[in-house]
This record gives sequence, structure tokens and C-alpha cells, in this order.
Amino acid sequence: MPPSQPGKNQVFFGTFIHAKKFGELEYLHNTAICVDVSGKIVAIEPNCNQQKAVETVYARLGWSLDTVAISVARDHRQFFFPGFIDTHVHAPQYPNIGVFGKSTLLDWLNKYTFPMEASLSSLPKARRVYTRCIRRTLAHGTTTAAYYATIDVNATNLLADLCFSMGQRAFVGRVCMDHLGPEYYIDESPDHALAATRATIDHIRSIDSNFEIVSPILTPRFAPACSVETMRGLSELQKQTQLPMQTHISENVNEVELVKELFPDSRSYADVYDTHGLLNEKMILAHAIHLTEEEADLIAERKAKIAHCPCSNSALTSGIARVRWLLGKGIQVGLGTDMSGGYSPSILEAARQAKLVSNHLAVPGGRSDDLSWEEREEAKLSVEEVLYLATRGGAQVLGLANKVGVFEVGKQWDAQLVDLGTVPDEVVEDDQAIHGNVDVFGWETWDERVAKWVFNGDDRNTKKVWVQGRLVHVQTYMY
Amino acid sequence: MPPSQPGKNQVFFGTFIHAKKFGELEYLHNTAICVDVSGKIVAIEPNCNQQKAVETVYARLGWSLDTVAISVARDHRQFFFPGFIDTHVHAPQYPNIGVFGKSTLLDWLNKYTFPMEASLSSLPKARRVYTRCIRRTLAHGTTTAAYYATIDVNATNLLADLCFSMGQRAFVGRVCMDHLGPEYYIDESPDHALAATRATIDHIRSIDSNFEIVSPILTPRFAPACSVETMRGLSELQKQTQLPMQTHISENVNEVELVKELFPDSRSYADVYDTHGLLNEKMILAHAIHLTEEEADLIAERKAKIAHCPCSNSALTSGIARVRWLLGKGIQVGLGTDMSGGYSPSILEAARQAKLVSNHLAVPGGRSDDLSWEEREEAKLSVEEVLYLATRGGAQVLGLANKVGVFEVGKQWDAQLVDLGTVPDEVVEDDQAIHGNVDVFGWETWDERVAKWVFNGDDRNTKKVWVQGRLVHVQTYMY
Repeated sequence: MPPSQPGKNQVFFGTFIHAKKFGELEYLHNTAICVDVSGKIVAIEPNCNQQKAVETVYARLGWSLDTVAISVARDHRQFFFPGFIDTHVHAPQYPNIGVFGKSTLLDWLNKYTFPMEASLSSLPKARRVYTRCIRRTLAHGTTTAAYYATIDVNATNLLADLCFSMGQRAFVGRVCMDHLGPEYYIDESPDHALAATRATIDHIRSIDSNFEIVSPILTPRFAPACSVETMRGLSELQKQTQLPMQTHISENVNEVELVKELFPDSRSYADVYDTHGLLNEKMILAHAIHLTEEEADLIAERKAKIAHCPCSNSALTSGIARVRWLLGKGIQVGLGTDMSGGYSPSILEAARQAKLVSNHLAVPGGRSDDLSWEEREEAKLSVEEVLYLATRGGAQVLGLANKVGVFEVGKQWDAQLVDLGTVPDEVVEDDQAIHGNVDVFGWETWDERVAKWVFNGDDRNTKKVWVQGRLVHVQTYMY
Repeated sequence: MPPSQPGKNQVFFGTFIHAKKFGELEYLHNTAICVDVSGKIVAIEPNCNQQKAVETVYARLGWSLDTVAISVARDHRQFFFPGFIDTHVHAPQYPNIGVFGKSTLLDWLNKYTFPMEASLSSLPKARRVYTRCIRRTLAHGTTTAAYYATIDVNATNLLADLCFSMGQRAFVGRVCMDHLGPEYYIDESPDHALAATRATIDHIRSIDSNFEIVSPILTPRFAPACSVETMRGLSELQKQTQLPMQTHISENVNEVELVKELFPDSRSYADVYDTHGLLNEKMILAHAIHLTEEEADLIAERKAKIAHCPCSNSALTSGIARVRWLLGKGIQVGLGTDMSGGYSPSILEAARQAKLVSNHLAVPGGRSDDLSWEEREEAKLSVEEVLYLATRGGAQVLGLANKVGVFEVGKQWDAQLVDLGTVPDEVVEDDQAIHGNVDVFGWETWDERVAKWVFNGDDRNTKKVWVQGRLVHVQTYMY
């Protein structure tokens, strides 16, 4: 099932908001964005309504009126925003979101995560879980996701099939783990891990030959779960294929200690990946909380990327990644839900938590206590900055900066239509109707509207979602 | 407009969940709870279906079938839960939720808060804002709220009227601030502050003579905004009326410094309230983040209560209150949204954040760094504990422990019907329908269902809300 293309050229009218640069949103009002049948943005016209488009733009593009489909964002209440990019998410863990008990990383893996992942070798169960995970993340505006699947080849291939047919841009990684795992859920050998990975690459190539929508991604789970041979083998495979890679780093202090014990000759956790050929510009490292200065410098030098997962890091008591410190070293950072270490399928929630936990870095009594007030304030991320991480930052991390994350001619139309609720001028006491969880009274600036969305918005505010021009989600509530 | 009583006895069937004690939920399955026409729980019958109720319970209560209205929580998907209690919320700031810019407490007050509060002396605007605030908090399951209004008597009275007619149990406080405020928003004298407070007490008595649903609450804004005379006058008034009181304490380090400067003879912030006669068992103190050991001991000795407001404390970079430390001193603690220092109208969100920020107290690199691993782990609050704070803890803080917060014979029926979404056994790729933000697959334990609700639930899961037996909210979505 290839994704059905819209078959028509499309024009979107209204307000468009995107991250112009880090910390600055651009508001394009009364604008038209023209998207061709391939899903590519071919024109952005300021001060353009439908009449003007008919009179001037279509002719220039060689479009006739009957080949154009039109979508409109209603003024002051709706706007188009780039689709969210989830740089780190475990699809098979979706049913476990919110379920932690009292665990932290290492016991959580054994108690909740490995049993759930292992159970998805049942394809009917995998279909139920993966379909729901993709639907849910699409509903939250996630147009691109970097998924960890499981060790099971068939279930991993199924996840790729579902992303492709449901139209979510995705990286799908068959998880490699041949060390320290539980007996019931482990790769029997490095050769097995590599052969299984190759099988999923071949499958994805068979459904999407150029990896336009779905791409494989090499996925060593994390250093403690991988033999030296598996890491070296994946490094070789990466050199041959130039595929992206993803793994975890420095999430939890006990995990960092474990890596020290397992790799006594390595200078650091980052050094383990580096000396096994896995640290390069194609590597996405999740978490990166407890990095040393030296490790961060090494990651910057190798141009590896970082997926910041604040929901997970708070829920599992892992810590707070110092995002501005990482950015200051020139490292590219995106956001990840990290379900089900993270409790939420929403990158908007990840953005909100990225803002809130960055504030905690600035609070007296924390790890910044030896810093001045100015330096502490510096740690805090703004609403505009976390929205950058949720879109353009994510695109950089996944190697898609030339394709998505921003509205520009030549980029793909990966977007969401956002609708904020308005409070009627006359509010009646017994009117119990609610429109989502954001209330706009009418006097708010656009910056304030966006802030209200970031702090209280949810999937109810995401009305429609497109990937590469294809409408992949329309909000449909059932009560 | 008195709240319309249901006029019938009521019976609720199904699963009931409540906080049995701190850290433990009780699950009452297949149970019937009988509520009389006054809204009081008169019987709780385990193992009781509708037929058994007809055969045995009604006769015992002297009820006939045609005087009984029935509500049912459907198995495995719905349950009744005590209504949430918001121990600290500023109704006039509701339109500003999510709007912070880069501010912290003191500049945020001047930039956003005082102008908004002052503007509500316009009664049409106050009506629009307050009606929406009450509707919104009811929709999130808040059956009781301790509101700060503004300095305006008429608008404060209007808030009380609206709580009464819309049926939300409420404490409504006319704010006293005769010191350091902006010229356009300040009490002109202590006498004025006290007279205005008395006027709102008289008004509330005129609509609800026994303060059954709506009660006045004495509200000195916080020490820096109150003259010594106003604090002493309110203390006198409290002694005469035995009314509850509310104020802020130790939210922000700069605020603490300011109090030191303003009250150089006081030993501490808590001591300021104590020496002005405001620290007793009727006082609700919001925030209490940067308290010293000595201050916490004084608060415990005086039996004053604390409203923990994690959403606000993270958003305004105030810090993290050490809830278990406070509880360990015997201080009663509830949760507050603190809109619009807090960004959310939801006590469920406050509970979630109370859990998450407590984890941050346990993270290496924070204020607990001199503690052992065990002591750090101790700081973390569980799902069960934060739900206790959201219900029974709140009831204790507001002096309502004998009335609400738990399902017991003799308590009021202040409750919500919670509904969790279920994932169909056969998930179809192009089925875009979504039921709220919680997905139950069917294999989860009840503890796990509740955890899923706490981490991903929202007002979509709150289907109906009752206060004192009266149905005050039914979910009605408009898209």
C-alpha cells in the first residue's frame, strides 16, 4: 500500500507560524503556501488571499483552478505549524505509558519494558499496539518519528509497513541487544543481530526504495546491552549503507557506573561508542544527562546529535539534560517522547516539560548553585526555543533539515493545522460546552496565544496533519 | 439562585476508588453508594447490584424505587473518584494561564497579574472570566476551590454568586493589599481593606447563610503587600468570625529577601505571620518552598496548612517544595493549581507535576546531594500519594476533612465519574477516532489504570461531576 498522494496541487491560506531561528518564531499572516502534487512547497506568497492566488500565483505556477485543493486556517484562532518531530520513541512500549511503579531505569527495563517488547513477537498484538501508537502520535501532530521497534524482525517490518501505509515519516530500527538481556529477550549472537538488522533494511527497501517516507535506522540498544562485536559490526554496516543510527547515552547514574564497569578501558561512556566506530554525524544519542565536559566536546567534534527526553527523565528520576550547555557546544538537539520511559505520546508535552525542567536548572538548590544569577537564568529555555527543538531541532537531529521542520520553498509539506478555543463574549453559566483545553479571550497577542498552546494545548488543538502533502490525520472524536 | 437539589435519593453503582490513607488507594468494586436528597452518603454497600439494592438496601433506608435516581460506572472502564480539591487558585488570573514571558514572581506580578486583576473591576469582564474559570475547573473535576478574587468588592461578590449558582464548593477571598502595590491597584488604607472584606462576608452570608457551599476566606495577599495594621485587623476579624484564612509564604528567594528587608525584627517569614496573629489552624499557606527547619516547625506547631503548587513553582522558577519533609513534621498538605502562576486549571495536572517534581528532589545534582540514596528515594511521591493530596489532603487543608475527600457514610457526595479510553481488539489503520488521551488495552491492573489516568488523563476523562449530590457538570464537547 503506497501512501496515496493527494493527486492535486494544494494551497493553504491563513496564518503560518514556524521557528525562524532558535528562540524566534516567525508569523506569516494572510499568506498562501502552494504545495505541488509531490508534496513539496513551491511558493510562499505574503499578502495573498484566494482571489489574488487565482489572479497571479496559479498562472505563474502553471496551475489551473480545477487542479487545486484549498485549505484555510481561520483568522485569530487557527494557524498552520510544522509537524512535530519525535527524535526518540519506543513504539512497542506504547501500552506501558504512565506505568512506572517505583522503578528507575534499570529495574524498569526488567519489570515493564523487556516483557512488553518480547510479547510483540505476536504479530496480532504488534499490529494492535503499533497501529494505535502511530495513530496516537499522528493525532498529536508528530509527522516524523525515530522509532525503536523490538528484536523481532517480522514485528519490526510490520511497524515499517504501518508507518508507510498510515503516512507517518519514520525511521524504524530493529533493536540489537546480545548482552546482559533477559534469557527470553536477547540476540543469540552478534551475527544474528546483524543478519536480523539487514533483513529489516531489505524489507524497508522493498516497500520504499529511496527511504522517502520510511527509512531503516541502525539501533544498538545501548552499550551495556551490546557486545563489542555487535557494535563493530553495526559500525561496518553503517559505513557501507550510510544509514542513520540511534542509541542511548548517560541517562542514569547507575547506568553510567555499569558502563564504567563493563568497559574499564574506555575513558567515558561516549568514548565507548567512539572507539567502536558508532560516534559520527549519523548517530542520535538519547538523553545525554550526565555527560562530562570532555564527553560533550567529543560528541560535538563527531557531530553526533542528541534527543532530549524531559518527560522520561523526570518520570524515571534520571535527571535534567543541560540543553543550552549542549547547544553552546554546537551540538544539535531535538525532542523525544521516549515512550514509555516518557509518559506521553505528545511532543507538545515534551516541549512543555523541556521548558519546565530547564527552569529547574535555574532554581536555587540545584546543580547550578555555583553559578551566578545570570548564568542560571541562561539555563532556562523559552517557549520559542522549545518549539524550535520540537521542529527544526528535530529535523537537524534526524538529518532532515533540508526536507522538513520549517515552511520554505523546496521543503516538504509536513504540517499541522492548530485550532485554539475561544471564549464567547457572553458566557452563560449553564453552558457546559468546552473546546479543547486552551481558552483565548481575544485580547491576547500572537506570542501569548502560542504560549497558551504550549502550556495547555493537546491533541484536541491539532485538527489536521499532513506528511509530504498527504492528509494523514483528521481529528475525529468519539465520546 | 440557590443550587437546585436533585430532589431524589440517588444510588451510584460500580467501582469506587479513593485514598484510604496516605499512599494507599482503596478499590470498591461492585459497590453501591446511596446518597440522600441532601447530598449526603447514607450507605455504602459492597457486592451490591441494582437488584440487590432494590431487595435489601432501599427498604432499610425507607426509600421507594420511584424516589431513586441511578448512575452507573461501567466496569473496567469507568469509576467514581472523589472530586478534586484546589487549595490555592486565583480566579481573576484565569485568562493569563500559560502567559509568563521570561518573568519570575515579582516582575510577573507587575507585568501580568496586577493589570489583569485590576481590569476585573469591570463586572461584565469579571462575569466572563469567572464563569469560564468555574466551568473549566468543574470540567477538570474540581469540586472545591479556595479562590483569591481581587480587591474589588462587587467582583468578589460576583465570584461568590457564580460559585453558588454553578454549584462549585468554594472559599472566596477578597484580596487585601495596602502596601507596595501599584497605584492603580491597592487598598487605600487598612480600614478600607477590612471594611471591604466585611462587605464580602456579609454578601456571602446573604446568599449561603451557613456557608454550606460558598464561604468567605480572609485573604491578606502576602506579607510584602500588607501593612502591619491590616494583618492585625484581619487577625482580629478571624478571631471574631473563626473564618479560614489564606496567604502566600516563601515562594521565591527574592520574595524571602524582600520580607527580611521589610520586617527586619522578625526572625523569619513564618514569624511575620505568627507575630501578627495570622498563623493558626485556619491558615492556608501557599508554596512554602524555601522554609527553614525552624519555620516548618513553627507552622507545624501552629497547625497551619500548606497548599503545594508544583505547576506554578516550576513555571515561575520558584523551586520545589519538599512535601514529604513537610508531611513528616505533621503539617497537612493539599494541592493547588495556583492559576495563573500555575499554567493549568487541572488538579490532575497538579498531581502529575507533584509526582514529577518530587522525583527531581531525588535526582543527583540537586538540593538533596548530601543525602543518601535511601533518603533521596524517600523524597519521591507515588501516584497514590499525590492522589491523596489532591483529595483528602486538600480537604484537611480547607478544614473539610469531615465533609469531603473520601467515600464514607456521613460525607457529602462530591465526586467525579472517570472514564478511560479502551483500545479496540481489532485496530483498523484508517480509524482516526480518539477517545481522550488514555489508552487501556485491557490487561492492565487497576493500579496501572489509575497510573495511566494520572499521567495522561485530562478533562476528557471526567464525564460527570457532583457537588453535595448535585450534578454540576456533564461533559459536552463541541468541535
